[in-house]
Amino acid sequence: MKIVIINSGSSSIKYQLIDMPAKEVICSGMIDRIGLETSNFSYKTNKDVLEEILPIPNHKIGLEKIAQLLLDENIGVIKSTKEIEAVGHRVVHGGASFSDTVLITEEVKEKIKQLFELAPLHNPANLEGIIVAEEVFPAAKQIAVFDTAFHQTMPEVAYRYAIPNYLLTENKIRAYGFHGTSHKYVSEKAIAFLEKNSKIITVHLGNGCSITAIKDGKSVDHSMGFGPMNGLIMGTRCGDIDQSVIFYMVNTLGYKLNEVNTVLQKQSGMLGLTGYSDLRDIQANAQKGDANCQLALDMNVYRIKKYIGAYAAAMNGVDAIVFTAGIGENSTYIRKSVCTDMEFLGIELDDAKNEIRSKEIRAINTDNSRTKILVIPTNEELEIANQVSELILA
Amino acid sequence: MKIVIINSGSSSIKYQLIDMPAKEVICSGMIDRIGLETSNFSYKTNKDVLEEILPIPNHKIGLEKIAQLLLDENIGVIKSTKEIEAVGHRVVHGGASFSDTVLITEEVKEKIKQLFELAPLHNPANLEGIIVAEEVFPAAKQIAVFDTAFHQTMPEVAYRYAIPNYLLTENKIRAYGFHGTSHKYVSEKAIAFLEKNSKIITVHLGNGCSITAIKDGKSVDHSMGFGPMNGLIMGTRCGDIDQSVIFYMVNTLGYKLNEVNTVLQKQSGMLGLTGYSDLRDIQANAQKGDANCQLALDMNVYRIKKYIGAYAAAMNGVDAIVFTAGIGENSTYIRKSVCTDMEFLGIELDDAKNEIRSKEIRAINTDNSRTKILVIPTNEELEIANQVSELILA
Repeated sequence: MKIVIINSGSSSIKYQLIDMPAKEVICSGMIDRIGLETSNFSYKTNKDVLEEILPIPNHKIGLEKIAQLLLDENIGVIKSTKEIEAVGHRVVHGGASFSDTVLITEEVKEKIKQLFELAPLHNPANLEGIIVAEEVFPAAKQIAVFDTAFHQTMPEVAYRYAIPNYLLTENKIRAYGFHGTSHKYVSEKAIAFLEKNSKIITVHLGNGCSITAIKDGKSVDHSMGFGPMNGLIMGTRCGDIDQSVIFYMVNTLGYKLNEVNTVLQKQSGMLGLTGYSDLRDIQANAQKGDANCQLALDMNVYRIKKYIGAYAAAMNGVDAIVFTAGIGENSTYIRKSVCTDMEFLGIELDDAKNEIRSKEIRAINTDNSRTKILVIPTNEELEIANQVSELILA
Repeated sequence: MKIVIINSGSSSIKYQLIDMPAKEVICSGMIDRIGLETSNFSYKTNKDVLEEILPIPNHKIGLEKIAQLLLDENIGVIKSTKEIEAVGHRVVHGGASFSDTVLITEEVKEKIKQLFELAPLHNPANLEGIIVAEEVFPAAKQIAVFDTAFHQTMPEVAYRYAIPNYLLTENKIRAYGFHGTSHKYVSEKAIAFLEKNSKIITVHLGNGCSITAIKDGKSVDHSMGFGPMNGLIMGTRCGDIDQSVIFYMVNTLGYKLNEVNTVLQKQSGMLGLTGYSDLRDIQANAQKGDANCQLALDMNVYRIKKYIGAYAAAMNGVDAIVFTAGIGENSTYIRKSVCTDMEFLGIELDDAKNEIRSKEIRAINTDNSRTKILVIPTNEELEIANQVSELILA
């Protein structure tokens, strides 16, 4: 069964064509800078790689170009768009409406639209991708996979804020959680690897960073809340901060509220502390003695450690900690630092195993470590394909 | 040595006259609703209690009335204001300037003034109390004890936010921490009781609530930050909340920024969740089956548990947890709930000991409990008197 996975952003489309249940990626690529004269287009199969700079005025023309290449006589991989059984769409915000993957109907689209105000940067682009895909792949089932869905199992104590009740009932203000597709994927891999349903903490460290407490396979707490800017320190996002800073910046320092938002979302995090947003640069500079870079790494690690402690308290212990996504999978330094001075949780890292580079799932704790430490490469596209094919076969 | 302790608020003065080193409270009382026709005045000694409703137009007249009663022929306790060796002032915000108790000079007053914008509700009233006390007790040393001072030992990883550096260097935005006098007092009591310098977590649950990680007698992390509204859930303050809620309430729901501030400071916390701000009412209603009250208690407890886990991670373990202040000293329910399902930290509460009511310091863990659980009545006035007499004798 051939499934197209679409992750549609405001000016980008990432796509993959995956054959299930073989899990084979037949082709993949992305379009960037949609709407400009110099859009970037890429298309990659087992045999061919195509990269172009050309004007792609909108998502529809972008997706048509993708379909055209999929069908191309020379470098194509299908004969007809009818071969595509389903299109799986990543949708960022499912609010409290969606706790699972769904077949997209007019009603579903209407609900995604109602959630625009909770995710103004993401949901409109996601819906645009759906509407365009319906035209380009008219025979395919359109299916939505929500970033928030996995966290819909969080109990009230975890998702509620201590604010007046009408802000929840009338205005839907609560923690939703994000990166759910990744946390679900790696936690299921971890459960299979451990051969038991354990208390797991998944640490997703990529461009965005978040951490989830998972008990019996279900998300019970998560570091991102109403939006995707709090919790761990990220590339440009500040993560947790005392909210009174916002009032002070506006009332006393004279910032406009939206300037504060821009500072906290785009000029903070590792960038604000160091001038760099890429962790590799920061690690390299810290090694050369840059104190700001070292401090930023220390702060980042300290925040992760505190969340691990908090989630151990939420679950009365932890059996396994999972590192995933770009930084989690590749930074031996961050993993080692997070696992240092954590004997109180029975954490004991095996330094040699931590240094091994691999794309495979692996345990990097010592044999004596009471808590398992795992590195599990995430694959959000494959998880979307899994969920799409499960829904179709259900 | 006779010391007057003054805690001056915007429309109130709380005061005590303490004899040191005997720690004897010779008299105590408060003035409330200063500036109104119906100010409340109270004055209490071992023998006499005086309560009056009368107009007290300003702090100066209030403090003069206190001095007049101290000197009164019948119910007074001193013959001359010259008997007062020192006046100890509680000052809420010492910024990064004060890491210790200081003799008040013109320079100190200037610095307290410079910190007005960091604590606009508190520091102006505190300075007013100082200026008035200098006139009313001209022979006494005036000494300032700062709520923030104890937390000045926090390391950078704990007090810094992941925001651009200029917001720290130019605008002093960082975590300061509050309730320092109380956390210092009970942690020193705990260290004396345990007979060793341990890893301690002090949980101050009163009108305001906060929690401190204390290693080797020093504050290393604390739940309140730049201001006193984040961290634990309080009577009317929300504690931690995703900052994106603020942007949403203004940009999408149409609140004014200062209305949001009012909601989060005065209409949130236990009040926002239940309609009650007094924990005794909430516990009583929860017992009668009120679901909102039960949830609010559960959220409150869950937040405390997560902070305990986080601070255990910050210190690589915890030897003792200390409950203090009104709720911490009196709510057997909250203490029991916080200590339930916390075996991963070696916490084991002795239910019978937990039920004992006492004004004494006491351990309420079982003999097997790896982590000690202590109840220690706080006494901020006595701590201020301690610090004042130490400074004078130094």
